[in-house]
Amino acid sequence: MLLEKISGPKDLKTLSVAQLEQLAEEIRKFLIEKLSATGGHLAPNLGVVELTLALHYLYDSPTDKFIFDVGHQSYVHKILTGRKDQFDTLRKYKGLCGFIKRSESPHDVWEAGHSSTSLSAAMGMALARDLKGENNKVVAVIGDGALTGGMALEALNHIGHEKKNLMVILNDNEMSIAPNVGALHHYLGKIRTDRHYQKAKEDLNQLLNKIPAIGGKLAKTAERFKDSIKYLLVSGILFEQFGFTYLGPVDGHDFNQLIDVMEQANSVSGPVLVHVITVKGKGYSPAEADSFKWHGITPYKIESGQVLKAVGPPMYTEVFSEALMELAEQDKRIVAVTPAMPGGSGLLKFAERYPNRMIDVGIAEQHAATMCAALAMEGMKPVYAVYSTFLQRAYDQIVHDICRQNANVIFAIDRAGFVGPDGETHHGVFDIPYMRHIPNMVLMMPKDENELRRMMKTAVDYNDGPIAIRYPRINGLGVAMDKEMIPIPIGSWETVREGDSAVIVAIGPMLQIAEEAAELLKREGLNLRIINARFIKPLDEAMLLKLANERQHMLVLEEGAELGGLGSAILEFYSLHNKQTAPIRIMGVPDVFVEHGSIEEQRQEIGLTTERVVTELKALLPSVRKRATGPA
Amino acid sequence: MLLEKISGPKDLKTLSVAQLEQLAEEIRKFLIEKLSATGGHLAPNLGVVELTLALHYLYDSPTDKFIFDVGHQSYVHKILTGRKDQFDTLRKYKGLCGFIKRSESPHDVWEAGHSSTSLSAAMGMALARDLKGENNKVVAVIGDGALTGGMALEALNHIGHEKKNLMVILNDNEMSIAPNVGALHHYLGKIRTDRHYQKAKEDLNQLLNKIPAIGGKLAKTAERFKDSIKYLLVSGILFEQFGFTYLGPVDGHDFNQLIDVMEQANSVSGPVLVHVITVKGKGYSPAEADSFKWHGITPYKIESGQVLKAVGPPMYTEVFSEALMELAEQDKRIVAVTPAMPGGSGLLKFAERYPNRMIDVGIAEQHAATMCAALAMEGMKPVYAVYSTFLQRAYDQIVHDICRQNANVIFAIDRAGFVGPDGETHHGVFDIPYMRHIPNMVLMMPKDENELRRMMKTAVDYNDGPIAIRYPRINGLGVAMDKEMIPIPIGSWETVREGDSAVIVAIGPMLQIAEEAAELLKREGLNLRIINARFIKPLDEAMLLKLANERQHMLVLEEGAELGGLGSAILEFYSLHNKQTAPIRIMGVPDVFVEHGSIEEQRQEIGLTTERVVTELKALLPSVRKRATGPA
Repeated sequence: MLLEKISGPKDLKTLSVAQLEQLAEEIRKFLIEKLSATGGHLAPNLGVVELTLALHYLYDSPTDKFIFDVGHQSYVHKILTGRKDQFDTLRKYKGLCGFIKRSESPHDVWEAGHSSTSLSAAMGMALARDLKGENNKVVAVIGDGALTGGMALEALNHIGHEKKNLMVILNDNEMSIAPNVGALHHYLGKIRTDRHYQKAKEDLNQLLNKIPAIGGKLAKTAERFKDSIKYLLVSGILFEQFGFTYLGPVDGHDFNQLIDVMEQANSVSGPVLVHVITVKGKGYSPAEADSFKWHGITPYKIESGQVLKAVGPPMYTEVFSEALMELAEQDKRIVAVTPAMPGGSGLLKFAERYPNRMIDVGIAEQHAATMCAALAMEGMKPVYAVYSTFLQRAYDQIVHDICRQNANVIFAIDRAGFVGPDGETHHGVFDIPYMRHIPNMVLMMPKDENELRRMMKTAVDYNDGPIAIRYPRINGLGVAMDKEMIPIPIGSWETVREGDSAVIVAIGPMLQIAEEAAELLKREGLNLRIINARFIKPLDEAMLLKLANERQHMLVLEEGAELGGLGSAILEFYSLHNKQTAPIRIMGVPDVFVEHGSIEEQRQEIGLTTERVVTELKALLPSVRKRATGPA
Repeated sequence: MLLEKISGPKDLKTLSVAQLEQLAEEIRKFLIEKLSATGGHLAPNLGVVELTLALHYLYDSPTDKFIFDVGHQSYVHKILTGRKDQFDTLRKYKGLCGFIKRSESPHDVWEAGHSSTSLSAAMGMALARDLKGENNKVVAVIGDGALTGGMALEALNHIGHEKKNLMVILNDNEMSIAPNVGALHHYLGKIRTDRHYQKAKEDLNQLLNKIPAIGGKLAKTAERFKDSIKYLLVSGILFEQFGFTYLGPVDGHDFNQLIDVMEQANSVSGPVLVHVITVKGKGYSPAEADSFKWHGITPYKIESGQVLKAVGPPMYTEVFSEALMELAEQDKRIVAVTPAMPGGSGLLKFAERYPNRMIDVGIAEQHAATMCAALAMEGMKPVYAVYSTFLQRAYDQIVHDICRQNANVIFAIDRAGFVGPDGETHHGVFDIPYMRHIPNMVLMMPKDENELRRMMKTAVDYNDGPIAIRYPRINGLGVAMDKEMIPIPIGSWETVREGDSAVIVAIGPMLQIAEEAAELLKREGLNLRIINARFIKPLDEAMLLKLANERQHMLVLEEGAELGGLGSAILEFYSLHNKQTAPIRIMGVPDVFVEHGSIEEQRQEIGLTTERVVTELKALLPSVRKRATGPA
């Protein structure tokens, strides 16, 4: 076993190409085995084994900076930089992070989780290097999907302008998470397959070589032509137009080609783009056959490729998916829009049934949002299905294009709250604070999957501006489903449990915690009232005024940032109405980033648990009793 | 006068080209005259006179949809669609908006103010049209500067993929607000000037025509070559690669060329990009000579081009500019970064003095933010100078790249609060709510220009993560300036006036309102305490606890959204610490978009005035007096 002897990149330097090939096979075996127990991003990592080896073989990390776009393809890098023994803890609480993590290793120089940031990072590092008078390499590895993200294109434009020395490796596997969308994708496909470019180049050379024989005036024309057309005749002309030197495409699983092209890149001054073709899932046939499914995978059986799945009620995502199709059948205005997440957002079936009404824009959250505004203004009902964390990219478009123009856009915000093993880059804990303060926005969260269906109908019926539904990355509760989707009056809350000792105002999955706490406290003689604050905006003002008059202690429970969240909205409301209330306690996500683990562990870490709710209420409630016996 | 007879686009249809030319001259005269009194975006509008006339001449607005990127170049469109009599009210309160405004006219179909949204809007409108089975034209007019914004490139990629019928007019004037940055700009420059492309095309044609004479095997090669290379040989190859048909470049001041190219465009199926070269400021020599200065202009004398300027203390922007140069002299880590706003952000002098340490990335707010994170992580001190409203584009990058990695990025957030005549798309009223809830962020606002300098020093000395200073688009107060910049302890507030009747907690320019109110109330025997809450995050917790114990009524004054702002932060703090307080009243910007006018009028509209503060306090304070005489 060569792998056992690799404790850091220096151990690679003396290997032969044959040994690198052996090591690649060992790493593949290692990944397939380890991930069968932990799950993780198998297919992307199998695709970059040789590429990562070649980088560490040729360059000197961490002096040379490797920047992995998104970072889910950094497992091989982790194996080669002293972390192979930690793979049993991959994506687990306090274990190895599934992305780049600076606290894990000096070889991890740039963290991500969201796509398309690597070129900007590379530019910043190259600028800093030059200002400091240093001369290390800066290498960004970016997938063809991530390249369509607006910020990557902004960076491409700027890098081409500044002409700094840096290398971009375009890891082209013809798909990001889902099959790729966009003109860039077609363009890369052309380079890869239709041979026009290569052929044109060969033909031109042949032609130009013969031309001196023509003689006379034409020869001169031909010479001038040779000069002027030369730079048009490279495969990567688009990148050349952006100011890069383009090299490739090369086979990303062939060490000789990889080493050759990188050595060639080293001799280029200014930005260089190396086009590397890889196969996602390479070396594990189930993953090669369905790299979409195997992009991020739960534990599986190695032999059969059978994925081990927990059974349970349908995920919220699935309930959304089914409801949307029902609604779309009745309402022809409905159009679904996704930024490269048709699978994750539950839109694959919708796309089959309504191919013309499903628009995958690629990794382009901003464009998607503004396009939705325009669709709405022309009378359609766009449903922007997106993860809470990725919608952050479209904040300005939500403010400026959707809310300011009061466009009838429906947001289906998946992965609201904690997301578990993807960790801090992926939590949906900011959407309430970043959306609640925008005029014209309506923001809902369902207590269960049946209420999600009702909210979908509510949103489709609503024609007064933007409306959003946020729902968690978990299974539904298995509740009975109404056949008909009955809309909910805008801004109305619901009392789900009567009581007079104190009131819990909660949203989404926090209602279960509230119920559990109420049951425990009942044994101690306390009767909690529980309110489902299904509208985060607008608030149920009548109910809030009534609650203020009753002067019960209030606990607000939300799986989202405490700063600027639902609790703050309630405090603001009472302040605005100059209402003196009994104490209001907010329990949400405090002002920290929460690392990877299970959703349960994440809630535990910050105290968003039944036990803690019980403790808090016990601490609050004695004063209620005192108040009840003291002067009014 | 032809212009007098134009009450709508239909009045153009019968004009001859000579008449259109005459009308263009009349419109130029009209604009130069009207704007000399009101100010406004003169140069951009002088540049698009013929282009806008040609659009309304050839197409049928509003059935055909014209989308103006940003919208500051829509004055000619307004003149042609029945609004010429309203130009005396341009950008004034309740007057004609300086951008597209749907409530003004059915011809205004898409509003903006931020750049780069027009392609997404066009795509949405084209999709809706096709889904509805209609067949109107959709035309987006976008400048070469706006094209580098990430969302425009995302849209370009998507449009090229979907192949919908729509027209993009690239209004190429070689600059947006500032001279343009980026590879795309160089690329357009090549098309315009270095003739390589045109020459190559001519040469190739000549060559290919002669080739059959060569005969034999080579003829066949030449034929194949002809086919395969054809699509490489157009000027706009980059746009062709993105899936567009490229037409142009044409002279944007020549009606014959404009009409020809648009008619040609009409016969193209799928997306078409028409490259139009225009001269910003065309027809008014001062504006042609300095189109940067004349992009947006205050009133001026027509003959001399002399701009009428109010005198007063330096703007906050200028104070920032001077302080940054002083600091950069001492601290070599400082690098200034701007997304295409070197002038507006006060960085022109800095760029002259430190050309290597000033990075203009073009219109690319996202890339700028993430690049700053990388610069910081490599030991530099990036100062991201940006308008509050444009920083909205980088919200995700602030969360994911800067705050999550706790990078030492300094934000210099200009135009915080109301901005006056640019109106609702440009106010900086959301930055507190969209930044305050992000972990690791420090957020400050100075009470005067001397404190801005101190905060700059505070920020440069701070090495524990991101730190932001927001300051308004107004003149400083003319206060005495400390020679040395003395840093301020992080999270410390300052009592600027002692009193015991009630307390006003205020930030920035709101402190003047607080002072004025205090003076007025003093006459009635009330002594207000005034606190300068110069740190919006972290709060001065010790002071807040002290205030709570004193149980004075509190009024929070902030020129920013009330939802999620400083007032909410204070309410949250007391809730977290389970502190019962006297009533806290928040006065900020309520949950609406506020239209154009002067900053004074905008404050008046929402009641952020001295008079209103006095009224509010009078309403609150009787209960204080009662409390003072009742039981403790």
